[in-house]
Amino acid sequence: FVALCPLEAAAAPQQEPLCIFGTGDFGRSLGQRLLQAGYKVVYGSRRPQSCGPVPPGTQVMSHMAAAQSASLVFLCIHRENYDFLETLVHQLSGKVLVDVSNNLKKNIYPEANAEYLQKLIPGGHVVKAFNTLSAWALQNGPADASRQVLSESQDFIAYLMYISVATKLGLSVLDRGSLNAARELEDFPLELFPVWRLPLRLTLGLTVSFYTYLFLRDVIYTYVTEGKDISFRIMVSLANKVFPIVSLILLSLCYLPGVIAAFLQLYKGTKYKRFPDWLDRWMLCRKQLGLIALGFACLHVLYTLIIPIRYYVRFKIAESTISKVKMNQTSTFDTSVAWHSDSYLAVGILGFGFYILLGITSLPSVSNALSWREFSFVQSKLGYLTLFLCTLHTYLYGGTRFLRPSTYKWCTPPGYMLCLLLPSVVLALKLLILLPCVDRSLTRIRRGWERNGAGDDSRKALLT
Amino acid sequence: FVALCPLEAAAAPQQEPLCIFGTGDFGRSLGQRLLQAGYKVVYGSRRPQSCGPVPPGTQVMSHMAAAQSASLVFLCIHRENYDFLETLVHQLSGKVLVDVSNNLKKNIYPEANAEYLQKLIPGGHVVKAFNTLSAWALQNGPADASRQVLSESQDFIAYLMYISVATKLGLSVLDRGSLNAARELEDFPLELFPVWRLPLRLTLGLTVSFYTYLFLRDVIYTYVTEGKDISFRIMVSLANKVFPIVSLILLSLCYLPGVIAAFLQLYKGTKYKRFPDWLDRWMLCRKQLGLIALGFACLHVLYTLIIPIRYYVRFKIAESTISKVKMNQTSTFDTSVAWHSDSYLAVGILGFGFYILLGITSLPSVSNALSWREFSFVQSKLGYLTLFLCTLHTYLYGGTRFLRPSTYKWCTPPGYMLCLLLPSVVLALKLLILLPCVDRSLTRIRRGWERNGAGDDSRKALLT
Amino acid sequence: FVALCPLEAAAAPQQEPLCIFGTGDFGRSLGQRLLQAGYKVVYGSRRPQSCGPVPPGTQVMSHMAAAQSASLVFLCIHRENYDFLETLVHQLSGKVLVDVSNNLKKNIYPEANAEYLQKLIPGGHVVKAFNTLSAWALQNGPADASRQVLSESQDFIAYLMYISVATKLGLSVLDRGSLNAARELEDFPLELFPVWRLPLRLTLGLTVSFYTYLFLRDVIYTYVTEGKDISFRIMVSLANKVFPIVSLILLSLCYLPGVIAAFLQLYKGTKYKRFPDWLDRWMLCRKQLGLIALGFACLHVLYTLIIPIRYYVRFKIAESTISKVKMNQTSTFDTSVAWHSDSYLAVGILGFGFYILLGITSLPSVSNALSWREFSFVQSKLGYLTLFLCTLHTYLYGGTRFLRPSTYKWCTPPGYMLCLLLPSVVLALKLLILLPCVDRSLTRIRRGWERNGAGDDSRKALLT
Repeated sequence: FVALCPLEAAAAPQQEPLCIFGTGDFGRSLGQRLLQAGYKVVYGSRRPQSCGPVPPGTQVMSHMAAAQSASLVFLCIHRENYDFLETLVHQLSGKVLVDVSNNLKKNIYPEANAEYLQKLIPGGHVVKAFNTLSAWALQNGPADASRQVLSESQDFIAYLMYISVATKLGLSVLDRGSLNAARELEDFPLELFPVWRLPLRLTLGLTVSFYTYLFLRDVIYTYVTEGKDISFRIMVSLANKVFPIVSLILLSLCYLPGVIAAFLQLYKGTKYKRFPDWLDRWMLCRKQLGLIALGFACLHVLYTLIIPIRYYVRFKIAESTISKVKMNQTSTFDTSVAWHSDSYLAVGILGFGFYILLGITSLPSVSNALSWREFSFVQSKLGYLTLFLCTLHTYLYGGTRFLRPSTYKWCTPPGYMLCLLLPSVVLALKLLILLPCVDRSLTRIRRGWERNGAGDDSRKALLT
Repeated sequence: FVALCPLEAAAAPQQEPLCIFGTGDFGRSLGQRLLQAGYKVVYGSRRPQSCGPVPPGTQVMSHMAAAQSASLVFLCIHRENYDFLETLVHQLSGKVLVDVSNNLKKNIYPEANAEYLQKLIPGGHVVKAFNTLSAWALQNGPADASRQVLSESQDFIAYLMYISVATKLGLSVLDRGSLNAARELEDFPLELFPVWRLPLRLTLGLTVSFYTYLFLRDVIYTYVTEGKDISFRIMVSLANKVFPIVSLILLSLCYLPGVIAAFLQLYKGTKYKRFPDWLDRWMLCRKQLGLIALGFACLHVLYTLIIPIRYYVRFKIAESTISKVKMNQTSTFDTSVAWHSDSYLAVGILGFGFYILLGITSLPSVSNALSWREFSFVQSKLGYLTLFLCTLHTYLYGGTRFLRPSTYKWCTPPGYMLCLLLPSVVLALKLLILLPCVDRSLTRIRRGWERNGAGDDSRKALLT
Repeated sequence: FVALCPLEAAAAPQQEPLCIFGTGDFGRSLGQRLLQAGYKVVYGSRRPQSCGPVPPGTQVMSHMAAAQSASLVFLCIHRENYDFLETLVHQLSGKVLVDVSNNLKKNIYPEANAEYLQKLIPGGHVVKAFNTLSAWALQNGPADASRQVLSESQDFIAYLMYISVATKLGLSVLDRGSLNAARELEDFPLELFPVWRLPLRLTLGLTVSFYTYLFLRDVIYTYVTEGKDISFRIMVSLANKVFPIVSLILLSLCYLPGVIAAFLQLYKGTKYKRFPDWLDRWMLCRKQLGLIALGFACLHVLYTLIIPIRYYVRFKIAESTISKVKMNQTSTFDTSVAWHSDSYLAVGILGFGFYILLGITSLPSVSNALSWREFSFVQSKLGYLTLFLCTLHTYLYGGTRFLRPSTYKWCTPPGYMLCLLLPSVVLALKLLILLPCVDRSLTRIRRGWERNGAGDDSRKALLT
């Protein structure tokens, strides 16, 4: 009864060899792994006699002979060299063809490599797979338990055979749908942080603007008014102002789209109208914004902690002590200053602690271990708490300084005031949403209720 | 021969549409993903003409027509609206019914949603699944490689069809057993850190008690005896005493149950007697205790590092320098004080380093990459080393202070002495266990030996 | 049609019980999990009447009766007790036998336990599995979503049955090939950081050598020339010199093999010649070298940040202030010193930030979420940037000190100069490789080109 199940054909390793075209790095690594998994392996090569080293225990034949001996062929050759396959149309028809090729750049060919292969061999069962693996990862595979491969095929029998082989190799297969998506799969190894691009650009813009702004207000102002050169401050003092400012702005930009979305839903009285595109795109990069904000917060902490080691600071402290001695001053301890300084530092540390917690829970393995409610609790409740603490930290930093006219050099506000605007607005709007009456409407809308009453059916639809 | 394998029926996407009841967020996201995977999708709706947007390429029909056209139906509707399904008993019999619903709260219905569904449609093959996924996760699924779904069914054919669909969607399926456990699965997305509850309460209790204790000994004592207001110390100074105290106690509470368990086994002379319930529950939350302890240790480190930035500390240092100048004192450098101060700091840093290492190895993805022996080496050997270093750090902090009577304000010991009790006991007991004779008995018991010699068979049983 | 598929036999839980030999921890935990998954469970025991507690709902029989009632038997007994199985050869023939046993040490038996079992029961279908799981992990399994099991078998039918059971238990199966590799699987839980051994030994050697070197130059030199005892410096001051030195050397040892490999390829004109063994082994432990380097960098940061809290430092600062007052000196603020001190610190912090980033991306769950190009961008580009920043930090630390003769105590260079050698060489070589002409040749070679022109076929092979 066993022979009736198509899984059998490929899975019983003894019966039939698997064929690999191409004896490059990838071909050799793959052959080695297949051998280890108990398969017979046959290489197809243009010049079987002089093709370089292959794993011991495998055979090298001509392409034609190799193709005939197996019912599953791995194509480990560059697309540029696919043309010779046309001569094997007959031998490869009916065979499962696993296309593992990648290109060096995106969009240099009109169709995906796998689609091109299917065109060349119309009778073959093409599976696109393994292209997200490197030869390196293949060779070291068994130790790396969590390696997954993406793959796709239109062809169910081909797919079953391929899966049984991939499983034997210790790879867990993630199906990515039919062959039409092959291009997406082939572009996958060429992507370079696509979702990070927007947040990174924003960060760069903010950093440069605030650096310039503070440079003008600090270094240039001092030079113009007092003639003193304090340009050394750009290395640490200015950086330690820019980092927390950018971090706080990015953190509030994480939570602003959620608030905007809630008000849009309240305004439209339904959750079934799509959000505008810019809001959708914004919401999709919240995680990245938050992680960059965390990075800047970490830099702020490090820059703050080295303050007492700096030559400048040590000099100032010594100078002030010496001048006190000389003037014979007796300064008295001011409890309110101590309160202010300590609470400012303590709130900052607590805010940073929660910040780190948010960062840890966004590690893939940690967030996968959380239930949906836990994840949203951490990212929303703890997130707003973090935003609140960091904003409070900045307010405490400012203290009563905003009352002194000397703060407004050249009539411009200091950087920390500018950066307080956004988080204050976000927190105020969030408070508004938390008002019982607003909250009730919003919850009703999010469960499917519509203000204009049309949605009898959609009211019954499941929201998550 | 292919048609003989039941996998085929659902897996060949062209043949038959899949049906989704409900056009809410989840229904629409699911439809989109099914479309991307190459399936035909049909929606069932009460008012097919005016049901809101569905993904382009899908059809909307009446519930009855939709049910008839497919052999697998996803029910993306709230349980409150299941009643209309009774009218479709005939159409849904023999179909695979995937119940994805969640409730807003636990225990509001007598039976699980999936069991209720099975009651309504006795002839349907009910699978409980996807309820741990959000519409959001479904839409962004392909990028999130490690998303797993839990699911369960009593029905093997139904289950196979469901698995082939879930796999096509790029989800890896974790089977949670038969439908009887549906309630557990439905409660899953509603859980909020259940294992963290006990450790968090304990932490809160300890923190509040020690804060109060230190507040009385520090702030109130100074106010009463000297009339000075040093309440500003609660922000940083007191916190920086409470955090390490609680951290050390929690860390030793991590290792105490293991020691108790060993002594219980030695006392009873067998490992086949169950531990008392409190010990079992305690052992299950050791990881959480350790992580909270690590969090407090991190706060302690940050609070310590900002010491030189505090106004209070700077004032004190300046004051002492000035007074030295005025008194014309010549203090000499005391090498033993330098030794003491440096070794206290160095031991603390090393302890913290190992602490962090323990934290990193308890990340799910890291601990999965370790073998069982590696994991137990890190968590046990390195764990005890960490406990030892942190305890030593506290002893060094105390130094010879315990000899001075002025330490015992109002005849109470300082906080660090109280917190040294528990780790000292744990380390002493562990040392006892490591004695060769005790260790030998324990190893024998853990390999299945029993003192009263009854267990001939169980001696042969495998222990891990 | 269902009965035709071999999956069915084991997967329909109602039909037939599963059998477990052995009622120890592992046997009981496994039984409990199988019960939860809906299977009937039967225990085989030598003395069925007095075998200790088994999960309620299971039956205990004699080994013979239990073996006859099931077609899949889990053997949860120590290998020492396998001998009695010989009496059951008849009953166990044709059954699927899952061997879960582990040994206490490596290489105490000539063949793997699973192979021994196969010898005892030649007619059984042996599967080696579950031995990497502990009884503990089995009991807590359902919550730990990412638990994977490794397993292997020569026997396809046996394997399919086993897989369907393992899947029902919520475990994802990683196939490790045929039974010949059983020993590797049995050694797996006994391994203790095998890839870490070489890097750790190297680290130990470097640390001890530099500690000794600096101890001689610092403590002994001062004692000999000035007669002063500054031995307290070994706790923090010396450690804080050794840690960054070792960290920088380890980091450059991470990148040196890649550079050597590139020059080897350039020299040989082909990428098809194998690298020497020592280079291969070196390249395989680069990740471990990098992580240890990161650990030492973290220690360096902590040791640096506590500087202002140290008694020694506070004493020195107070002393210098007092002496300035007494001498009535007026020291002027030196902007160039401020520039130097600040830029040295800032570069160090930035280097450390990228260091941490490298560490985070080498977490398994993070690196799995990156595409191949992203991973190599982070580990290569950002890695060299980190190495550059850390080297620059060290150069800035040295400053113009290398010009002063007093730096070379006993004619030996200070530690930081020694450690600058290696990273400077690595960076210089890397710069050489980045020269357009060299880069072009290297890229051609890595795409399969060979200088001696022999490789017509291999030029077509796929590189990754």
